[in-house]
Amino acid sequence: MNKIRMGIIGYGNMGVGHCNSILSGRTPEIELTCVADVREERRQSAKEYLPKEIAIFSTPEELIESNLCDSVLIALPHYDHPKYVIMALEHDLHVMCEKPAGVYTKQVREMNEIAQKQSKVFGMMYNQRTNHVYRKMHELVHSGKFGQIKRVNWIITNWYRSQAYYNSGGWRATWDGEGGGVLLNQCPHNLDLLQWICGMPSKVQAFCHNGKWHDIEVEDDVTAYLEYPNGATGVFITSTGDLPGTNRFEITMDKAKIVCENDQLSVFELNVSEREFCFTTPNGFPAAEGKYLELETDGLNLQHIGVLNAFAGNILHNTPLVADGTEGIHGLTLSNAMHLSSWLQRPVTLPLDEDLFLEELNKLRMTSKEKRNVQEVSFSTEGTY
Amino acid sequence: MNKIRMGIIGYGNMGVGHCNSILSGRTPEIELTCVADVREERRQSAKEYLPKEIAIFSTPEELIESNLCDSVLIALPHYDHPKYVIMALEHDLHVMCEKPAGVYTKQVREMNEIAQKQSKVFGMMYNQRTNHVYRKMHELVHSGKFGQIKRVNWIITNWYRSQAYYNSGGWRATWDGEGGGVLLNQCPHNLDLLQWICGMPSKVQAFCHNGKWHDIEVEDDVTAYLEYPNGATGVFITSTGDLPGTNRFEITMDKAKIVCENDQLSVFELNVSEREFCFTTPNGFPAAEGKYLELETDGLNLQHIGVLNAFAGNILHNTPLVADGTEGIHGLTLSNAMHLSSWLQRPVTLPLDEDLFLEELNKLRMTSKEKRNVQEVSFSTEGTY
Repeated sequence: MNKIRMGIIGYGNMGVGHCNSILSGRTPEIELTCVADVREERRQSAKEYLPKEIAIFSTPEELIESNLCDSVLIALPHYDHPKYVIMALEHDLHVMCEKPAGVYTKQVREMNEIAQKQSKVFGMMYNQRTNHVYRKMHELVHSGKFGQIKRVNWIITNWYRSQAYYNSGGWRATWDGEGGGVLLNQCPHNLDLLQWICGMPSKVQAFCHNGKWHDIEVEDDVTAYLEYPNGATGVFITSTGDLPGTNRFEITMDKAKIVCENDQLSVFELNVSEREFCFTTPNGFPAAEGKYLELETDGLNLQHIGVLNAFAGNILHNTPLVADGTEGIHGLTLSNAMHLSSWLQRPVTLPLDEDLFLEELNKLRMTSKEKRNVQEVSFSTEGTY
Repeated sequence: MNKIRMGIIGYGNMGVGHCNSILSGRTPEIELTCVADVREERRQSAKEYLPKEIAIFSTPEELIESNLCDSVLIALPHYDHPKYVIMALEHDLHVMCEKPAGVYTKQVREMNEIAQKQSKVFGMMYNQRTNHVYRKMHELVHSGKFGQIKRVNWIITNWYRSQAYYNSGGWRATWDGEGGGVLLNQCPHNLDLLQWICGMPSKVQAFCHNGKWHDIEVEDDVTAYLEYPNGATGVFITSTGDLPGTNRFEITMDKAKIVCENDQLSVFELNVSEREFCFTTPNGFPAAEGKYLELETDGLNLQHIGVLNAFAGNILHNTPLVADGTEGIHGLTLSNAMHLSSWLQRPVTLPLDEDLFLEELNKLRMTSKEKRNVQEVSFSTEGTY
């Protein structure tokens, strides 16, 4: 087999983008063979736009059972991810899943168990892990040369969305349709990167504000405070209502401060361990001694293309994935913990009480109301992730 | 009267700095006439260093009753501020008080009442208000042209202190000697600027860590979450254990984002109100339209000299103070609320329950232990505030 045959389930904002990526010729080991969407107008659009040889199905089930593909990419509303990931795995298909893997971690655990049982590749579309600055941050933190993390501040408020965005799909930004707001739709990448680079916290206290900036029932503004097992603390601040927003990720370590802002990575590397220095210097107000570097990175930022190619490579040559399915659990745990903490108005410790989370989520789903003023529309996702 | 005659009470780190400022000739309307310190070695140092005509007293009381001055500057440990501010006012002296005005707001209210009754000038040493970038931020926010504040993030972790600093005075960093740590000693300026520029929050939840980075009993690491009456939220992050630290103050408003970092002020000014734009644009993922400016400020940063000259000016010519005594209440309220919230592990609403705060503080004072390994030393305060 020289290429994997891929079916894309869901021809909405993300699905269209993935079709374009594959058809652009930048995924030499992937052949797009079929797409599925339950909406007539989207199938119509696919018929007009896609090459004739690509089959178009009106349900995910038909695509999964078509024998036209040996892998699928799931780009559906979040709640449908687990169902169709599992169905595809059970039909002996490899699966790439859009983020988040699911709405609650119990589901994602099950998905991974099935992938393992079926010996199929299950990858997560964590395309931001391909970004050179985040790869470099991961490398720096994990190199060990800077010692332990002391503080993490990520202000990631450049997820601006208008009301028109929320009005573009009935499932969007409802407890029943999406299971959350900015944490579940925009931030899965950031929460994944946060845990990938800095590890998982042991305690989370979050302040989520529902419908603060938009006419929606879920959160569009979050401030979360984190405590890590080693005593480090952090904040994670996000919103879809800040214009212009900020993306500034700062990690203070024993021997360095790493800052990433506007895709520029800078590091101040201390000559000594701060923890030792603190107790040995006779100076009461000492300045930092070391060197400041604006880091050169390899500049590569392959995004979705990189994840797709790694997925094909893993299937065909056993080369590494960008992120395997088990990675879908950690970031989602952060998101679930932030929600639960905010709902209960108290700190939440990890491991998460998954049953309590689901119980509380289901209460909200019961009160969830259908969106008004919905105007179905597909936006170009160029420039967003 | 061409000059005010000033006595300085406390010849420690700050007192020495103020003497130097006045003796440098940069405060033409202030004449230093006397200093007081209860410690023999400090008086000795004053005798060696100061001009012969400056009287040196061994108690604040003697200085206050000396008739050698018509104003005093109080640069003592925090708990002593209220006592000697009040004593000086009652002896018909004008008073400039180092920050914080006191350790709890009840005291500061009383100090202001007495200043008013005595018709004396009572000013606060909020020298950071003279900094051109903070003055400009205050002007921009209060101009009204950017609408309401939506978010405030201040990461102010560049207050690094070594263990030697904490070992330099027995009263330092103890509940009984200082009443708190970084919030009460290093941050009064920042908390004052925060409220001066952004107003007072209505709710505070803070996470203070005591002796996290140093061998001290009070907090040296704080993350606070703030909610404002208009719904805006904020974080305030500070520490004396981060090296190098950060000073990044970001204010997101309806029509602008203002960022101050490394003393450089930048503003992104939107063409439209975000609140209107959000509900009128047909674009789901709109970019910010407007202009980015690196602001020129007047560059003036007179610091202590500016505050001292304004104090003299107010007494002699009725020109404005940099900050009058009532301003001592707001920032201290923020600090008290952060402490109380952290002690009770719950959010605290303002106005603050001052009795509850004092009750909890007194519990800590009861358990407070004298510092070990104290090596009395005066550090130069050059470069710190």
